[in-house]
Amino acid sequence: MGTVIAGMTMSLDGFVADASGRVDRLYPDLEALQGTAYMNAAIAQTGAVLMGRKTFEMGDPDSFVGNYEFQVPIFVLTHHPPRTPPKQDEHLTFTFVSGSVSSAIEQAKSAAGEKAVQVVGGASVIQQLLRAGLVDELHIDVMPVLLGDGLRLFANIDAEPIPFEKIDVQDVGARTSLRFRVVR
Amino acid sequence: MGTVIAGMTMSLDGFVADASGRVDRLYPDLEALQGTAYMNAAIAQTGAVLMGRKTFEMGDPDSFVGNYEFQVPIFVLTHHPPRTPPKQDEHLTFTFVSGSVSSAIEQAKSAAGEKAVQVVGGASVIQQLLRAGLVDELHIDVMPVLLGDGLRLFANIDAEPIPFEKIDVQDVGARTSLRFRVVR
Repeated sequence: MGTVIAGMTMSLDGFVADASGRVDRLYPDLEALQGTAYMNAAIAQTGAVLMGRKTFEMGDPDSFVGNYEFQVPIFVLTHHPPRTPPKQDEHLTFTFVSGSVSSAIEQAKSAAGEKAVQVVGGASVIQQLLRAGLVDELHIDVMPVLLGDGLRLFANIDAEPIPFEKIDVQDVGARTSLRFRVVR
Repeated sequence: MGTVIAGMTMSLDGFVADASGRVDRLYPDLEALQGTAYMNAAIAQTGAVLMGRKTFEMGDPDSFVGNYEFQVPIFVLTHHPPRTPPKQDEHLTFTFVSGSVSSAIEQAKSAAGEKAVQVVGGASVIQQLLRAGLVDELHIDVMPVLLGDGLRLFANIDAEPIPFEKIDVQDVGARTSLRFRVVR
């Protein structure tokens, strides 16, 4: 079964969104990333995506087909699926999961086959997965900005230490991509 | 005048000490670092050290001569200097500064000559220096552990965004050394 990768872009002071919920200061390089080896590798290894409801709503889901970086089955963890599902095609489908994170992961893994499940956020979904021991790799992109306040990626995680082993560091423009394996 | 480098080792969730004030989980590699190119370069560029009182007291200052990595003049920011200064020699001296961080930096710069002033902590001293615009480079070593609670490095810093430019990334065993220039 595929690897579960939880990945987000984090400010140097640990936030994945500022106090207004904005993320633009974390992604000044969004256009520059397109077509890079860094993005192409992520795309090549991804067989399914899991995201929370807010992350889903922050994008423009109707435009995902043909535009979103991952043209794969997308699983959205939510108790309030939209009445009309967004536009889909034979590669990119939307599945709304109202159950537990573990059932969402099971479904995403099944869709991903031998490829990885990319969990793209938000923070709460990643925290739930870390608490449930369902993350295989953690990919943290650190952006050299201080947001001062906002939504922390690493909060609400049990005191029980999670052992991480660094597996890769990539210098990608302003961002530094740190990759860790969760040791079991 | 020399560069002012503020450097600390930080957990992935942003702490420089745990809730009990302990730092051992951030330095599992303390012995392994001795004699590495990473440490030798830091030693070679350092002309003076500035630290806060708690950082001073966490060590065993009487044993610094001949043992501490930086055998240079050490400036300690404190309103309560010890009655008896620790052991010193012609390289490693202790100066207790009860004034402002800016006067401490001025004295340390003067002692460092063309070399850098290393600010080795604590968090409060680095926060004061960042607020005062007195940091030239920020060296953050990220250790892949979650402490969950404790002393945050990046807190109490003005909302005014400080622009950082990444200048170097080093993969040093478990730690990842991120180096930024403060853009003025």
